[in-house]
Formats: sequence, C-alpha cells, structure tokens
Amino acid sequence: MSAGIGTPLSRSVADALAEVDLTALTPGSPAFVDAVETALTSFFASRRALVEPLGPVFIDSADALEQFVIRGGKRTRPGFAWTGWLAAGGDPAGADAPAVLTACAALELVQACALVHDDIIDSSRTRRGFPTVHVDFEQRHRAASWPGSATEYGSAVAILIGDLALAWADDLVHEAGLAPAALQRFAPVWAAMRTEVLGGQLLDINGEAGGDESVDAALRINRYKTAAYTIERPLHLGAVLAAADPALIDALRTYGTDVGIAFQLRDDLLGVFGDPAVTGKPSGDDLREGKRTVLIAEALRRGDAAAGARIRAGLGAELTDAEVDDLRALLTDLGAVDDVERRIADLTATGLAAVAASTATPHAKQLLRTMADSATKRAA
Amino acid sequence: MSAGIGTPLSRSVADALAEVDLTALTPGSPAFVDAVETALTSFFASRRALVEPLGPVFIDSADALEQFVIRGGKRTRPGFAWTGWLAAGGDPAGADAPAVLTACAALELVQACALVHDDIIDSSRTRRGFPTVHVDFEQRHRAASWPGSATEYGSAVAILIGDLALAWADDLVHEAGLAPAALQRFAPVWAAMRTEVLGGQLLDINGEAGGDESVDAALRINRYKTAAYTIERPLHLGAVLAAADPALIDALRTYGTDVGIAFQLRDDLLGVFGDPAVTGKPSGDDLREGKRTVLIAEALRRGDAAAGARIRAGLGAELTDAEVDDLRALLTDLGAVDDVERRIADLTATGLAAVAASTATPHAKQLLRTMADSATKRAA
Repeated sequence: MSAGIGTPLSRSVADALAEVDLTALTPGSPAFVDAVETALTSFFASRRALVEPLGPVFIDSADALEQFVIRGGKRTRPGFAWTGWLAAGGDPAGADAPAVLTACAALELVQACALVHDDIIDSSRTRRGFPTVHVDFEQRHRAASWPGSATEYGSAVAILIGDLALAWADDLVHEAGLAPAALQRFAPVWAAMRTEVLGGQLLDINGEAGGDESVDAALRINRYKTAAYTIERPLHLGAVLAAADPALIDALRTYGTDVGIAFQLRDDLLGVFGDPAVTGKPSGDDLREGKRTVLIAEALRRGDAAAGARIRAGLGAELTDAEVDDLRALLTDLGAVDDVERRIADLTATGLAAVAASTATPHAKQLLRTMADSATKRAA
Repeated sequence: MSAGIGTPLSRSVADALAEVDLTALTPGSPAFVDAVETALTSFFASRRALVEPLGPVFIDSADALEQFVIRGGKRTRPGFAWTGWLAAGGDPAGADAPAVLTACAALELVQACALVHDDIIDSSRTRRGFPTVHVDFEQRHRAASWPGSATEYGSAVAILIGDLALAWADDLVHEAGLAPAALQRFAPVWAAMRTEVLGGQLLDINGEAGGDESVDAALRINRYKTAAYTIERPLHLGAVLAAADPALIDALRTYGTDVGIAFQLRDDLLGVFGDPAVTGKPSGDDLREGKRTVLIAEALRRGDAAAGARIRAGLGAELTDAEVDDLRALLTDLGAVDDVERRIADLTATGLAAVAASTATPHAKQLLRTMADSATKRAA
C-alpha cells in the first residue's frame, strides 16, 4: 500500500484487507459485502484506543454505532464507488486496491449518520427489524429507571452517535492509506457529496413542511437526497481515485444522476403499489406517511380540483385498505403511474447510453448495466 | 502558500488572509478575532457554488449557520491552536501562516456543531442573545403557518445544520492549503479531538441521566468535554503543524489538560456564586439547572446524609433567591468551595510549570501565562 496521509491507527484495516482477495469482487455480492464489513470492523477495532479512556458509557455508544453499521445491508454506495474505480481502470490486484476499498467503505459511515439522524427526524421506531438508535437508548434509559425524559435522552444520545459516525467517516478516509495525490482528488468530491446529502435532507424536510407540490421540487429532492448521494457521487469518488479523465467522469455522473433518479422513482411506485409480502412494508405505506413524491406531484399536476382534493385528503391520513385502493386507481387513471414508468425508462436509457459511449472498461459497463437493472426494475 | 491537499475552492480563503497582517496577532485580541472571522467568512463564500444549486431552502440554512458562526465570541480554540503553533516555532511572517490560521479557524465549525446540537439536547432557547438555531427555525415554521409540528421542524433543521458544520469543518481543514506532511501530522490529532468532544458530551448526558455523583465522574467529563477540546487538543493541533517534538507536545498537553480543567472548575464556581451583573446569567443558575459539577460532587462527598439530601433536593428545583443563598452557604461550609479553589490553583500551577520547563518560545510562554490567568481568574 502506498504511503498514506493516515496514521498508524489504520494499520489494522490495511492488515485485515491484505488477507481478502479483492480481484474478483462483484458489487452487491456476498464477497463484496464481506470485504466492506472487514474494513469497517477493523476500523471500529482501531477506534478502541481512542474510545476506551472515556469509559463504559462511551464504549456502549461506540458499540451501538458499530452494530448499526455492521447490520447495514447491500453496501450499495461502496459498490458504486468500487465500480467507478474499476470503470476508470482501477486494478483490483494492484497495491492501492485495499486503500480504495477502505475509502469506499467510509461511505457507509456517512450513511449511518444520515440514517440515525433521519430516524430521529422522522420519529421512526424500527430500522432493519431492530429498534432505531434513539429508541434503543430510550429503552435503556427506561430499563435503568433513570430520572428525566427517556425520549429526550434517546434523541440526545442518537444525535451524538450520528455526529460520531460523520466524524469517523472522515477519519476512515484519511486513514485508508490513499496516496496524497489520490486523496487530493477525492477530497473535493467527498466534500460535495456530504453537502449535497445534507442539502437534500433539508429540502425533503422543507418539502414536507412547506408544501411545495411541484414536480420540479420533488425531482430536486430526488436528485440530491438520493441520486447524487447514492450513485452519482460514489461513482465519481471511485473514478477520481483511478484518475479518470473528465469525459469519463461526466459519463459516470450522467449515469449516476439518471439511474439514481430512476431508482427513487421506482421506490416511489413501490411505496404505493408494492406488494407488502415482497417489500416488507405495509401496503400503500407512502400514502399513509404522506410522502410528497414525483408520482404524487405528477398526479396533482394532471388532476382537476376534485382529484387534487381527494389526493391531498388521503396523504398522511389513516387510510383503510379500500381507501388505499381508491387512491391507487386515481393515480393510475390520471396517467401519473404511466408517466413515472416512462420517466424511469427514459432516465435509465440516457444513463446507460452515456456509459456505453464512454471509455469505461467493458467489465464496468457490464456491471453498470446489471446495477441499473436491479435499481430500476426491482420489486422490493 | 505551499501546495495543498485542498481544492481551488479554498483559493478565496487564502486570498482573503493574504491581505491580513498575521505577524503580531495576540490570541483573544480584536485583530486575532478579525483574522479568524476573515477566514470563516471567505470559507462560507467559497461554499456558495455548492449550496446554490440546491435552491433557496438550503441557502437559508447555510446562511443561518454562517450567522451563527460569525456571531461566535473570542475564538478561544483557534487562539490556543495558534499559540501552540507559535510555541513550537511557527513563524507568523512565514509562507504557511495563512494556511495554519485557516486550519485553526476550522475549530470554530466543530464548535458550531457542538453548540447547535447541544442546544437541541438541552432545549436551550437562546444563545448569545439570539434564538438558538432550532428555535429560529421553529419560529420560521410558525411564521409561515406550515402544517405539522414547528418544534419538530426546528429540531430537524438544526440537527442537519449541525451536521453541515461538522462536515464543513473538515472541508475547511482540507482546503486550508496545508502542506501534505503538515496535514498528515494534523489529521490524527483532529480525529482524536472530535471523538473526545463527542465522548465528553455523551458522558455529560449520562452523568445527568445516570446520576453518577462521584468527583471522578465529574472530573472525567471536565477532562473530555472541556479541557481536551478547548485547550489541550487545540494547542496540540497547532504544535504538530509546526512539527513540535514529543517533549514540547507533552508539556503543552499537560498545560492544556490542567488549565482546561481549572477553567471548567472556575466556571462551576461562577455558575453558583457568580454575580449576575457580570456573568449575564441568573444568580445560582447551575443550581437551578441541576448541573452535576465537581463542586457539587465534592460537597456530596463531604456532607452527611442530611446535607446530601438538602443538596439533592435543591438541584434542578425552582429555587427562591433565599434558597440559593442557603445552598451556597452549605457548599461553602462543607469546604467544597475551598477544595475547588485549591484544585484550580494546583492545576494552574502544574500546567504553567510544565510549559515553563519546556522548549516553548518565550513569547508563547508569556501568552500561555496570560491565557491561564484569564481562564482561571475570570469573574464571568
């Protein structure tokens, strides 16, 4: 591994990854997920020297963060980052591959901050089948019969655990062992990504509160909260690590923006029409939650005053299954569903065309086609 | 300025500081405060290219963060960092001085995150005479008559603004224009500082909730929440930028820990005995807030069961002025006040002795003596 900007604390991450075969990793595969988790687990181990002097309370919080991160699913963002690196000619058998994979894994810590804080903001009680972090600490407070508000305690601890995740995301990047020149290319993209995702979350909150019902507003939230953060910037981060040229970066970013928005549009459709047995969420969940999606904005744009009133009355209400069915029929009849399906198809096509015309490696083009399929054609 | 790890975005910060005379800055002086604010203001200007594409909602949030940061007071942490750099021979007339001052200024963004999130956690309504960030956005929500909870909206926005401050703190460090070798020395200390302050805040919350009444527990919170974060690590950060040797770093860290704890102990005394006309806070404020300080822990350790019961009953209660006077008399009679004064004197002495025996420059030794005085002998 090249001489890094990091510290000896990172040694254990490099050591752990040195034992993993990185040459045939397919993003999303169990082997890829394992490799990312190896990087994350050894990073958490490297934090112990910092955490332990602060005593058991802090150790418990750091452990809660580690468990949350390790429970994380498909490692989508590291997968796109790794693919961006491969696309620009990154060599998984090369000396810098472990450092690159480690930097990709750091995206999972940014994501942990986003999710832990989002769960406070949305008052979500469970995630991935477990209590959310603020609920976990609320329950610990109750179990210990401490004085004061258990709810406020839970939120306070979760705010700080999210902050810790954000701070540690940077630490992992800077201790990944990247060469100084690679880190120099990485830093501004990393900065942009974090600003964009926080901006996207702020837009989302304001969209819900301020009631901007336009299609453009919903698309802008998709762009920054999902597309930029989940696909575009991860691909961009990987590409700059392999010193991609500007034309290839543009192509990957076009793919990332377009397929990323298409991914979110598919999510919007599943949130209303998805099969609960497949999605694991209640039928019509997004309607009951009152989400302001492109699907809803498009229906409002197309509908007359009466249709608009029916949609607005249903959003965020306690709906019966029959009422959910009625709203679904209305969205379909207005043509909003077809419109969103057409957007998904168009965006996927433009995204794939940009990559097809680029200098990305054939292997990466193949991966990106598969990833576009699973992002935009999934049932859950 | 040396070739940096940063991006062209930082150019405006460097340009702005190139016009400031850094050669005779005394930490805490108006000229020093101005120089830090110049770095911060030009950094915020450099973010606009990232912020503007996300639209007016995000621009408003970024503006709120900037106003919060620019209102910040004495720039204590950048002052200690600058002093650490001077102590190890940093040359304010040298080419790297603007980059160093910029990296020092980044501490104010970490502090902004800590304060914005702390104000949510403590449900504080005002700071520095202005509404806290969550209250500000709560009021904007009410003024706009948006649907939903104004309180939850305010907290949500403030959580994200705090996150933005933490992310931007890193961006400022990496765009400061530090030489790669300097950044390499800076990064692990920066990482440790952020972990420690978040750990200190977690200990503080748990101390209040979990009711550990020991002197050791209170001292540990002081160590990490205040001393490490306010003095020790800022000095350490500055010292490594000037490539200080390990013995000098040890001396500065000893000073930072000891004077930092003494600073907090003085704060604890002022929180109970301070003159409202000087401190700007209600008389006996810490008693009414129920703060678990070393002063209180020491009084509980010294008192019998009856004294302990009186103290515990008063903490966090709605106290009359006469009741505040009674508790003050009790703390004094138990010898807790003398004990804390003795700790302040002893810690200040050991901290100053460490620096006196070190290779710090005479000018820095002089500054550190003055700074110890104002940290530990103040009336507000």
